[in-house]
Order: sequence, then C-alpha cells, then structure tokens
Amino acid sequence: MPDRTILLGQDRIPRRWYNLGADLPLPAPPLHPGTHQPLGPEDLAPLFPMALILQEVSAEPEHEIPAEVRDAYRLWRPTPLIRATRLEEALGLRAARIYYKYEGVSPSGSHKPNTAVPQAYYNREDGRRRLITETGAGQWGSSLAFACSLFALECSVFMVRVSYDHKPYRRVLMETYGGSVVASPSDRTEVGRRIRAEHPDSPGSLGIAISEAVEVAAQDPEAAYSLGSVLNHVMLHQTVIGQEAREQLALVGETPDVVIGCAGGGSNFAGLAFPFLRDKIAGADIEVIASEPASCPTLTRGIYAYDYGDAVGMAPLMPMHTLGHDFVPPKVHAGGLRYHGMSPLVSHAVNEGLVRAEAYAQLECFAAAVQFARAEGIVPAPETSHAIKSAIEAARRAEESGREQVIVFNLSGHGHFDMQAYADYFAGRLADDVMPEDEVERALAAIGGFPKPPAAVV
Amino acid sequence: MPDRTILLGQDRIPRRWYNLGADLPLPAPPLHPGTHQPLGPEDLAPLFPMALILQEVSAEPEHEIPAEVRDAYRLWRPTPLIRATRLEEALGLRAARIYYKYEGVSPSGSHKPNTAVPQAYYNREDGRRRLITETGAGQWGSSLAFACSLFALECSVFMVRVSYDHKPYRRVLMETYGGSVVASPSDRTEVGRRIRAEHPDSPGSLGIAISEAVEVAAQDPEAAYSLGSVLNHVMLHQTVIGQEAREQLALVGETPDVVIGCAGGGSNFAGLAFPFLRDKIAGADIEVIASEPASCPTLTRGIYAYDYGDAVGMAPLMPMHTLGHDFVPPKVHAGGLRYHGMSPLVSHAVNEGLVRAEAYAQLECFAAAVQFARAEGIVPAPETSHAIKSAIEAARRAEESGREQVIVFNLSGHGHFDMQAYADYFAGRLADDVMPEDEVERALAAIGGFPKPPAAVV
Repeated sequence: MPDRTILLGQDRIPRRWYNLGADLPLPAPPLHPGTHQPLGPEDLAPLFPMALILQEVSAEPEHEIPAEVRDAYRLWRPTPLIRATRLEEALGLRAARIYYKYEGVSPSGSHKPNTAVPQAYYNREDGRRRLITETGAGQWGSSLAFACSLFALECSVFMVRVSYDHKPYRRVLMETYGGSVVASPSDRTEVGRRIRAEHPDSPGSLGIAISEAVEVAAQDPEAAYSLGSVLNHVMLHQTVIGQEAREQLALVGETPDVVIGCAGGGSNFAGLAFPFLRDKIAGADIEVIASEPASCPTLTRGIYAYDYGDAVGMAPLMPMHTLGHDFVPPKVHAGGLRYHGMSPLVSHAVNEGLVRAEAYAQLECFAAAVQFARAEGIVPAPETSHAIKSAIEAARRAEESGREQVIVFNLSGHGHFDMQAYADYFAGRLADDVMPEDEVERALAAIGGFPKPPAAVV
Repeated sequence: MPDRTILLGQDRIPRRWYNLGADLPLPAPPLHPGTHQPLGPEDLAPLFPMALILQEVSAEPEHEIPAEVRDAYRLWRPTPLIRATRLEEALGLRAARIYYKYEGVSPSGSHKPNTAVPQAYYNREDGRRRLITETGAGQWGSSLAFACSLFALECSVFMVRVSYDHKPYRRVLMETYGGSVVASPSDRTEVGRRIRAEHPDSPGSLGIAISEAVEVAAQDPEAAYSLGSVLNHVMLHQTVIGQEAREQLALVGETPDVVIGCAGGGSNFAGLAFPFLRDKIAGADIEVIASEPASCPTLTRGIYAYDYGDAVGMAPLMPMHTLGHDFVPPKVHAGGLRYHGMSPLVSHAVNEGLVRAEAYAQLECFAAAVQFARAEGIVPAPETSHAIKSAIEAARRAEESGREQVIVFNLSGHGHFDMQAYADYFAGRLADDVMPEDEVERALAAIGGFPKPPAAVV
C-alpha cells in the first residue's frame, strides 16, 4: 500500500525562496500614499529592515534562506503532503486524485510562520527590539508572537475586533508565546480613536488594524512594522510550501493538473502556487485557482487599480485588485480573508490569465469543511474551507469530464482556534454572507482619483 | 546538521501491539462488582465485543493489528520523535538530551485515537451500531467520535461537567466528528439523577461519567461501552507509541536512560513505556517515570487495593492503585488526570519497582508548559505538562550528576482546546491544587471491606 503521507527529511527544507516577480515583473511600482510618486527603498526604511526592503523590490529569481531561518523552519518543516484517500472515497472519485499540503502542523497552526520567522530574524539582525503588527482571525498574530519568542523580540498585535471577540483563545495563544494583544480599532492610536468616535460599534477590519500598527511602529525607532501577507517579500518567504509540494509530488510520480489555495491577502495561495506558476510560465499545463469568500470577493468582483494597503491611507498605494480601502467586509468567520485588497503579485498573475479566481459563500464552505473533517480527521480553519470547496468542485468537474486529474490544494491551517465558527454553523446561526453592491460602489468611488496602473481594467 | 525530527515511513507503522501482561502477569483477576467473584469473559459480553475481551485477558505477548486499523492509523501515524534542541538550549543542558514523541499530530490532537480506532473497528465487526463513553477534558471523547466517523458508528459521550463548562470547544469538536455530548452527571441516567439530587453542584468526575455510560450501554443491545484508559486492551493498543519511539531512537543511535509519561488512567504512559519496560524486564537499564498531579496522586499517595473502576460500583473491582472510588479530585485543568484509580498493569509495574511515580502541582506544571511552548513552539495539553515538568527535573538531575542521559517523554497531546487553562494561568486565577487529607481517608474507608489483592501493601 503506498504511503498516504509523503514526507521529506529535514535536509530537504528548501535552501532558497522563489521570487515570482523575476519571471513576472509587476507592471507598476508602489506609490507614496501622500505624493503618489514611486516609492523608494528609503521611504520604507522607518517601517522595515533593509534586507526585507531589498527582497520587496528584487528582480532576482531566488534568494538564499539564512541558516538560522532554516534551522527554525526545522521546528515544523518540511510539512507533509497528504493524499486525501478517505475524502476521495467519500466523494466516490474515479478520475480525480486529491492531495493537500498540510501547513497546520506548524506551532501556531498555519502557514504564517514561514514568513514570521524570517521577518523576526531580519529585524533582530537589524537591531530592532519590537515588532508591531495586525491580525485578522489571529493566525498571523500568533505566528509572529511565536517567531518573536524564538528571536527574543517583543511583539505587539492589533487584532480585528470581530475576531478578538469571536476567538479569545487565539489571543491567549499569542500571550502564551509572550506577545501582547489589543482589539482594533483601539484607543492606543489616533486612527483607532477617530474610527471609534465615528463608528463606536465598528467590527474592525484588517485595513484599520494595519493603519494602527503602522502608526505605532513609525513612532518608535526601536520598533518595526511587520505584515503577514500582501507584500512581495511575504509571498517570497511562503514559496517553501510549493517547492516542497513539487518535490513530494515528484517522489510519487505525480504531475499536478490543478493547484488551489484560498486567497485573502494572497500569501498561502502564493506559497503553494508560485513555484507551480514558474512551471506554468515555462510551459506546463496547470490550472491555478484562487478561492475567495463571496463576502469579500476581491479578485472576482473588485477592480484592478492603485489603492492603499490599509484603510486610511498611511500605507502605500499598490497596483492590485481591490474592493476599495474603506470597504468593511461582513463579519464572516474566515477572518483572514476579510481584506479589501490583494497581493500585487497575485493580482498581476490573475490579470495575466495565469490564475483563475472563484468565490464561494460561507455555508457551502463549512459544509465542505465538515465533510473533510469526518473523512480525513483534520478540522480546517474557516479560511481553508474555501480551498477545500474549490478542490471538491475541481474533482466534480474532473469526474464529469472523465479526465484523470491530479488536484493539489493548500490546507493552510487547522481550525482548532476557530471552533466557535463550527458551533455557530451547527447551531444554524450563520447566514450566507452577502457583499452589499452599493457599499462596494461607494468604497470604489473613494479611489476614483488615484493614478491608474498600466494593466488596469477600469 | 542532524534532523531534529525523526520520521518513519508509513510502512513502519507497527504490525503488532505489545501486551505487557504476558511478561508481567497481573497478580489478581478483576472481580464482579456485586459477587466479588473473578470475572469471566461472559460477564463483560454485554459491554464489549469478544475480540476486545480476549485481548483484555490475553497472555500472548503480541497481537496482530488488523489491516483496516493499520490503514486508519495512516491518517496520522507514525508520529514524529523530536529532539527538543531549543528546550535543551533554553535549559542550558550539557549532559542531558531530551526527546519527545509527539502524539498531538493525530486528528483529535492526542494519543487517544490509537485505541479509539481499533475499538470502533472491533465493535463494527461485532455488529454494534453505537458506542457510549465518558470523557474528562475531552481528548478521549473527541477521539472516539472521530473513530466512529471512520467506521460509521453513532457515538454518545458523557463529559465531566467541569470540563464541559471549561472546554466548550472540545464539545464542538466531538460534534464536528458527528458525536453527541451531554454533561455528567446528567439527567439521562439513574446514577446521574441520584448524584444531582444529592450534590446539585457536583463538578462530576471520570468515575461518575463511567457509571452513566455503562448504565446506558448495558440497556441498549445495539450499543457497547468504550473506555479510553485503564483496561488492559487499551494499554495494548497504545503500545504503537513506544514501539515507534524505540525504532526512531535506534535510527539516530540513541539508547534511552529515562522514559516518562503523565499518568491519569495510565494509557499514554503505558503506550510509550511498556515497549521499554519489555526491554527493562529483559535487563536494560532504564528509569521509567509516571508523572501525576499532586491534586489526584493515585500512585504516590493512594493504596494498592481492589476498587471499582467507576464511582458507584457498576464497573468491576480491579487490583490497582486508588484514592477510593468516590474521591472527587479538585477541579484542576488537567481533567484527563482526574481519575481515582489507575491501570492495573501500570499499578502492578509500580508495585514491582519497574516504574517510579512522582507528583507535581498545577502551577509548576504550567510554568514548564509555557517554557516549553516558547522554546519548541508546541503548546501542550495541561495533562502533558506533568510529563514536561518531570522531563525537566530529570534533565536537572542529569546535569547535577554530570552523567550523560537520554530522556524521552510522551508529548501526549496539544493544548489547543485547553486555552482557557492558559488564560487562567496568566491571569493568576489558578491555585496550587491540594488533595484534602481527610477526604482521601474518607474515600479509602469505603473500600475497607473489599477483598485484598495478593500484592496489596495495605
């Protein structure tokens, strides 16, 4: 009987990260939020160490992973690639084979430490003593708190209020790793105080929390800001996922036909997909799918335009798919996908036709997640349930066509800290989330006066 | 750099379970709770399928693992053996090397599925349609619910009330796997109703929950009872842990000096330790330590005597260490260790001097758990924190003596569903748990009239 679980020894942890930007250069640079002029490295220096800034603007296809980072990766990497034999059986598949890369084995339970660890490392090397960040559902915040504990840095996290209230144990996890956490919008920042004054009941958003973290980081010379998604260097670090998956598939003689990740800011999607996009750019026939929530359908209903990375215009203007920087998504449980924008690299790959996006509503994703848990044992994070739903749909299409298909998706995290979501689902307390049409139109109008990137479709 | 994580391919999942009872026969049989006569297999037939009863009374040293069980084990086994390099560094160790066997990678997050899966399998083979069980912290209940989902059985769980209230997400996990859960003592059973009438605020105990589960199972011909610890067949199934660990240590050329597990009913301890006890009986020089809570110190302050396995005398009298069947331990967070008795095989090994027991209080165990999490990334279950505390103490003794020592402990489960315990710890809401002396004397008096096993120390 062949192994269900395809393992790699720790000597097979990748030695380099892959930079998609070398093979697919961005069509437009990020712009200063105030002047609308192209950003230079020096503009980012107050927020990030130079090593990360150079990765952000790099045209090199590969970057060597520092030995200390590879050593820390050994706490959980390589992660297993698993053939979903029992899900295939439950679905009655004959043509499709489903594999998942399981990133939930990391200490904080998701793919996020892949970039948290190098970010903490480069900041410590740069002499910073404290990292400030935001988090949605808490996957990123707990990962950065963990990484900071490895490199003896302080860690302060602004957590989106709706997740702070729904997922108290994520906060406790951050504290267990030594981090400190406040709900956002908070009274610790000017931005937070202003939003609370205008909208006392604001559930918060990733965009707002980013603004708060940037405001604090910019004022403290010993601190730096840290972002868990969207930026090029984050996508770069995450490519250890796809590199390992490529090697694991090759070990069992498989060639992938469909590669799937859920997409909020884009980092787990990019982590799995970019090394396969490298193959696709070189001629391989691979369908690559980004799966997003219907409640925050950045790629499927947003526009490709310059927009702020945060909610209030403290972060650079980036060329990306966006729903408008002041769009506040409905309070769905997939908190990590509640972001108005998208990684510029992922957006560019979608614009170039290399990636197809699809959106699913909350209830059908939870149904897929429960079916998966009962077959495969692992209870997925609500974010990840979108990738599972996409994988099941891809398998259905394969069955209908009768074409043999190898489907690989990123099981980006487990749902152990998201059980309130499952409780709400079983109790019938969840509605199908709807993105209000007029709300988006209003939010998009706010970026009407911004410059347009060359590939803009507006 | 050598691998921190020692992996085995799935072809190395053990093919047989090891029965310590063959090498260390129990000195006295279980007795019928009413007649005090030795139990026959037919007495157990209403509660268990015959295959499990035969394992319970077996004198064979090894039992073959059925192919379907091994196939289900492939969902998470073999589990990794991990060298705790970063904990060693944090402790400044020079003489001691610490390894842990990580059972938290299973779907429900602990070692419990190792026996839940074969129990569900044998019950389905026997034509039973429903399994009834009890659970403390919820590790066992969620594991049995998961196993039942694999073999299409119904699963009903009586969950000790204090854990039901403290750990709501464990209940949601059981429901995610399709199980149903009620708090114990409940109004569903005569036992439960009687206890609730006498003690309306009863926090429950494993002993009470066992009584309720047995009462329901005995009344339903299509149902069977399932126990997650204590019994010989449960210890048998768990020996996959130690067998893998032995092979993994051999792969890196290590010989263990100290083997450690936490002990409540004894199953995770036995799972790691029994294959090493086999070596010890054959002459190997290994110190084997069972680590228990000071609040429920069955091995260190209980007596070796015949006592009921449950709280009210529906379960057999077993020769074991006990604090008295109606002892209700303080409400500590290590709910899985709140059991008045102990596996007869573990008790016998302690009596024979093959195993040494030690007890630690709650606060020092949480301190060890937090130190471990910040170094190694994994947040352990409160039960497991006792094994970590014992391992750190063993390492300190090695450092003091200057003797090179290889210490292996069972990281029996993660704490992702126990974060309220960490929240309480950080908030200073936890007291050091004390076992009231007079309470134990009172409870032990209740077994004064029972037969005495031959090796009894009373």
